[in-house]
Amino acid sequence: MARPTSLSGFPESLPAGRVVEQQIVDDLRQTFELHGFAGIETRAVEPLSQLLQKGEIDKEVYLLRRLQADADAADSHADPRTLALHFDLTVPFARYVIENSGQLEFPFRRYQIQKVWRGERPQEGRYREFLQADIDVIDRDALPFHYEVELIEVMADAFSLLPLPPMTMRINNRRLMQGFGEGLGLNSAAMTTVLGALDKLDKIGPTAVAELLRERAQLTSPQVDACLALAAIRGHDAGVIEEVGALGVTSELLDQGLAEVALVLDHATAINRPGFTVLADFQVARGLDYYTGTVYETVMSGYEHLGSVCSGGRYDSLASDGRTTYPGVGLSFGVTRALAPLLARGVLASSRSVPTCVLIALPTEVDRPSCGRIAQALRQRGIACEVAPAAVKFGRQIRYAERRGIPFVWFPAAATADGVPAVRDIQAGVQEVADPATWLPPDNERRPRIVTKPE
Amino acid sequence: MARPTSLSGFPESLPAGRVVEQQIVDDLRQTFELHGFAGIETRAVEPLSQLLQKGEIDKEVYLLRRLQADADAADSHADPRTLALHFDLTVPFARYVIENSGQLEFPFRRYQIQKVWRGERPQEGRYREFLQADIDVIDRDALPFHYEVELIEVMADAFSLLPLPPMTMRINNRRLMQGFGEGLGLNSAAMTTVLGALDKLDKIGPTAVAELLRERAQLTSPQVDACLALAAIRGHDAGVIEEVGALGVTSELLDQGLAEVALVLDHATAINRPGFTVLADFQVARGLDYYTGTVYETVMSGYEHLGSVCSGGRYDSLASDGRTTYPGVGLSFGVTRALAPLLARGVLASSRSVPTCVLIALPTEVDRPSCGRIAQALRQRGIACEVAPAAVKFGRQIRYAERRGIPFVWFPAAATADGVPAVRDIQAGVQEVADPATWLPPDNERRPRIVTKPE
Repeated sequence: MARPTSLSGFPESLPAGRVVEQQIVDDLRQTFELHGFAGIETRAVEPLSQLLQKGEIDKEVYLLRRLQADADAADSHADPRTLALHFDLTVPFARYVIENSGQLEFPFRRYQIQKVWRGERPQEGRYREFLQADIDVIDRDALPFHYEVELIEVMADAFSLLPLPPMTMRINNRRLMQGFGEGLGLNSAAMTTVLGALDKLDKIGPTAVAELLRERAQLTSPQVDACLALAAIRGHDAGVIEEVGALGVTSELLDQGLAEVALVLDHATAINRPGFTVLADFQVARGLDYYTGTVYETVMSGYEHLGSVCSGGRYDSLASDGRTTYPGVGLSFGVTRALAPLLARGVLASSRSVPTCVLIALPTEVDRPSCGRIAQALRQRGIACEVAPAAVKFGRQIRYAERRGIPFVWFPAAATADGVPAVRDIQAGVQEVADPATWLPPDNERRPRIVTKPE
Repeated sequence: MARPTSLSGFPESLPAGRVVEQQIVDDLRQTFELHGFAGIETRAVEPLSQLLQKGEIDKEVYLLRRLQADADAADSHADPRTLALHFDLTVPFARYVIENSGQLEFPFRRYQIQKVWRGERPQEGRYREFLQADIDVIDRDALPFHYEVELIEVMADAFSLLPLPPMTMRINNRRLMQGFGEGLGLNSAAMTTVLGALDKLDKIGPTAVAELLRERAQLTSPQVDACLALAAIRGHDAGVIEEVGALGVTSELLDQGLAEVALVLDHATAINRPGFTVLADFQVARGLDYYTGTVYETVMSGYEHLGSVCSGGRYDSLASDGRTTYPGVGLSFGVTRALAPLLARGVLASSRSVPTCVLIALPTEVDRPSCGRIAQALRQRGIACEVAPAAVKFGRQIRYAERRGIPFVWFPAAATADGVPAVRDIQAGVQEVADPATWLPPDNERRPRIVTKPE
């Protein structure tokens, strides 16, 4: 086998990096479950016809074909039964809900932590295979507004456990934007163009956006000014509602949207988790074409260039089988997008590369069974351990542990000068008498832990 | 969206089934880590050229193609850079070891729990997407024999935690079989044919196998009789070694193989975990063409028709980069293969379909923030809870909990006759005064648990 090379866009971690990922996935799961979300996993594939319903993404889909499929079937592009890898967890979730609606209880709170695939050009924060952690609440026919607030609290709780930089969640509201457009006398086609233009503000700046608004959406100068003024408003409290009011635009839908934003901000203040802020920001326009209420985007402090690491919104129809409509609200945390850059920069690392807490030193190969019994006694009390691979000099056995970051070496009676078993704390260089039936490592050494260092 | 149908070969669980799967994966992980195995995850794809090195499987591989790839590139079959989904975890692991050999410590103990894909015809126990849990120890240049014994103990520990039927691990040894052939005067080509024929014993019976041995491998009648006699020997202890000796065939390699089998049986007796048996069985021939020492197969009592649910063996060269050879030994547990039939039959189920332990009853919508604070207080002590979705009659709120199997409903002060908060045990129908800062559910109700029932 020639030395293989890594594939661009398909990140893989060394064991120490995997410790960090796994701990973060565990913390996410724990938080989601504490909030009553049930975990599901869907298959990795969907029929292409199902995936293409969300049209804009089609160019990024990976199609599947069996190597030994018939030549006729090989031109599978045209066949709607062709399978493709899912590119997000929302489409498979909607399909799962419709498929199992008779056996699910609504409202259905679910989380889903799985890989997704997109054939995009890879760059930092953008991968071809990446891990997403989604939470959604979906109901039948109607979904109460309070879930649009509750989901923020769930993610805030998750982020407060995770060793990540501070997060700012920027929110906007489809009704507010739509209502603002109505108040300005814009029809819905014009408003779609306006939202598309506002979405470019960060990239091309207000002058160029103003030109787009005038030329493509046929807005008058006062309309352009009002849109740009709205998009410039941001804040953490009800002050933003007053600022919008001061623009002098009114409509019933706008009032409704403003009231919803006020409720979200009010609750966000009450949540008050360290390192987590909610910011109303009426420039946020992504997804406003399919979301119908609150929309969310989240940037990680110092890593704004990654874009949003946690996005979502409310859908009035997340799924529908023709007879029944299922409204939902969801948030999707991009685990790989947030984590891979931190791991690559060494901002997050693991205290050791193996789960092993104790290496049992092996005096001679004949002692392997008795050393195995010591290991078993420790394992029964939840202490990860392994017996040394070979009965070499103890100095080499200690170095085996050191190279892996294993914090303790256990010396059985046959290995100590006084014939009494002892455990050595490698870092401290201290050795003490120990009984495998009662000895305990310090809590912070029991498992590998995440260590953070400033960049 | 028309009601979608499930895809044959791509099993998905309802939330209650997923509780079972997740618990079993957690138990596997915990066991592997207690034994010092580091977890890794590899990407889902490998270059096709990498996968095809293990030739026999090629017809089952799923190729990938981007929907918008160039027409020229579409005929990707011939292009070695074409990506395909991995069909096991051994090939990706070997590639990972070669790719990262400079950054790994050897011997390297790793576990890997991931989905794999094969385009096989689906049937019970055989899927197109399924979960595997692999453990391997890999070393540089040489790997001590004791790992061939140690891996059995790791899986025995895992199985002793899992709510599965009793497991019988059948072992054989390549050296023993090869040495027996040498003792009979068979060359290695003939021996390969012999192993292939013995592998068919269960299907076609000894008479037909005898015919194959005579006609395809050109064996004499005494040679045929010796092979069939060997394949009929099975047992839990050193008695099998004597039985082989009684066949009167001798060679150095056979003695070595017999000694290894004796060591494995000896240790297996010492392991002595409930519901787990090791059986030497010289009919086991699967994989003897690429394994070089001990080989393992495991059948689940009452589910023998599924075939082996945990297989593996020792490779003298699990990976090689041309300069360095990496011998290894591994076992692969087929999580989906073992579990899906048990879930489908209802032998394994979950005590509830949601993680929620407590539903906080909601007197009026105005009480949502204060009910949220009760929920938060419970969560901070690790109790999963959710606030009722709507302030409907308490009878309906209790039924919401009942339908999901949520064991407790919390009534805030505003909801009780005496103005004192109380918690209701739904199953027992008992309500008692409770303080969210101190109340604890019984340990066995804290999380959903696996319930087993006889088929």
